[in-house]
Amino acid sequence: MATKTFTEQELNDIYAFAVQLGKDAGKLLLEAARLRWNGENTPEAVEKDSSVDIVTKTDEVDVELFIKTSINQKFPDHAFVGEESYSKGAFRDYLISDSTPTWCVDPLDGTVNYTHLFPMFCVSIAFLVGGKPVIGVINAPFLNQLFTACGGRGAWLNETQRLPLIRNPIPPMPTNAPAGCVFSCEWGKDRKDTPGGNLHRKVESFLNMAAEVGGRAGKGGMVHGIRSLGSATMDLAYTAMGAFDIWWEGGCWEWDVAAGIAILQEAGGLITTANPPENPSTAQIEDVGLGSRLYLAIRPAGSSSTESGRQGQERTVREVWRRVRALDYNRPGA
Amino acid sequence: MATKTFTEQELNDIYAFAVQLGKDAGKLLLEAARLRWNGENTPEAVEKDSSVDIVTKTDEVDVELFIKTSINQKFPDHAFVGEESYSKGAFRDYLISDSTPTWCVDPLDGTVNYTHLFPMFCVSIAFLVGGKPVIGVINAPFLNQLFTACGGRGAWLNETQRLPLIRNPIPPMPTNAPAGCVFSCEWGKDRKDTPGGNLHRKVESFLNMAAEVGGRAGKGGMVHGIRSLGSATMDLAYTAMGAFDIWWEGGCWEWDVAAGIAILQEAGGLITTANPPENPSTAQIEDVGLGSRLYLAIRPAGSSSTESGRQGQERTVREVWRRVRALDYNRPGA
Repeated sequence: MATKTFTEQELNDIYAFAVQLGKDAGKLLLEAARLRWNGENTPEAVEKDSSVDIVTKTDEVDVELFIKTSINQKFPDHAFVGEESYSKGAFRDYLISDSTPTWCVDPLDGTVNYTHLFPMFCVSIAFLVGGKPVIGVINAPFLNQLFTACGGRGAWLNETQRLPLIRNPIPPMPTNAPAGCVFSCEWGKDRKDTPGGNLHRKVESFLNMAAEVGGRAGKGGMVHGIRSLGSATMDLAYTAMGAFDIWWEGGCWEWDVAAGIAILQEAGGLITTANPPENPSTAQIEDVGLGSRLYLAIRPAGSSSTESGRQGQERTVREVWRRVRALDYNRPGA
Repeated sequence: MATKTFTEQELNDIYAFAVQLGKDAGKLLLEAARLRWNGENTPEAVEKDSSVDIVTKTDEVDVELFIKTSINQKFPDHAFVGEESYSKGAFRDYLISDSTPTWCVDPLDGTVNYTHLFPMFCVSIAFLVGGKPVIGVINAPFLNQLFTACGGRGAWLNETQRLPLIRNPIPPMPTNAPAGCVFSCEWGKDRKDTPGGNLHRKVESFLNMAAEVGGRAGKGGMVHGIRSLGSATMDLAYTAMGAFDIWWEGGCWEWDVAAGIAILQEAGGLITTANPPENPSTAQIEDVGLGSRLYLAIRPAGSSSTESGRQGQERTVREVWRRVRALDYNRPGA
């Protein structure tokens, strides 16, 4: 089946709808959070950790249902893939088709943050055409930060500040990257203490990125800082903003990253696979597979006197690949 | 010399002055940041990393000078210890006296974040009486989050929401803490790849906290999440808020933590030393030394049917001590 195409006007309308949907969904999330901290949302539920998880689950299901219903009413021929609906499904295959315009939604990214009321939680809404994220909306309501983008229309913070934030000029990647870079990464949920398991591979990679230049048998990256927010979606949003230079992660899912990828790419960022190829110095740097669960993003970069922005990004990708271990995540159908 | 005491009315006035000062200083920081992202703050300075650092240094010096001058005019007999002024001094001794009312100020905590425009930066203003933080003001202007506290007057977010946020009731510490806890920590600036050095001690501690229960030879803590924001001050503010359950850190200074300690303690949190004593199970849990550079903070906790909030906090302190390595930081005079 051929990929459906959209006129510029049709895309404008879908974009405006998506932004409003993100605002409304964010408001719902914040209202639910406020009920919790005012003790009005079943106060006994905050006494036990398991009960907190139940409260959160209800909030997620409610918000996803609101988003899904709104989309179905407005665009009955579009497909919908949501974190909550997907989790109820019987299998874990990648479901996004190239031929059907598809909405890919996480009603609540940063669930642990939301449970604890750490402000780094958000709703993530992406619209995909031909299997590629074209529109992205991320709303972090407790931070009053709304990130939006649509192909060819720029990426924006709160609809007024174009991304990346520093853009007169956009800084090139540091000449000695990853030194000088803020490196964003997550510990994730796989905590098995197995030698060679994902937890140990991650920690070894983090340590390589952190250590002094010359340390770690030449792998020391001496990054400017290491940040872990507990939300893949917010990590990507801040990479698009230019606040993070590098985001490296394995294990999350397409609804965690689809909106972020749309925003990052529209801002001028690059995203490819987290796992180093056989020859990091020469391998082709390809766009990431949306459902691959392995992501390496580089912020928008300007040119310097010696290289283009893209060249600086690719140089940085190779320097990260030299320092990280391949992670063990995979995905049927992606 | 005897410690000077203040009447409630005098403290009210100093508190109101400190809050306004924090608001004004935060505005200055955000204006300087906006100039940068609008390309109006010496655009050539964003091209090279070293130049960015120069810009940041100017911003820090300006904001500290503003704060110091405002305090000197209003309270000429109060002492002032600021990050910038201190760094220019000849030695690294702890300078806060028990006998003189003292302001302890970091004009910009999260310098790397500020340089990269990641929103987790703030101004931190503390007022100390008898060497103890009594008033704390933390303003993160890019997040629109202002944290304030004064002894006996409660701790507040944006002057309207009392801390901790969840308080009807305040949740007790999880029965299996550190499991169920959000653990906040920082990689810091000491990146020497020395076996037994601070970097390796930190990573080993982080890994113990992260790993599954039963892993790491019984030290696995299976925390709910690990967060690194790149700002000790914001870490403490979020611990006071209840968003982080545990903050463990070594290497920062009194101006990084003084305001945060005032806010955390007024909210009901506990703060002691990061370094485990000889017998973690039975050692007395003492209040932290402000200038000790070694900090372990636990969020405000409510009582359960089996223990008081304080008992739950102390139990959590001991469980953290069991899993972390002693860090190698010290301080003359503290």
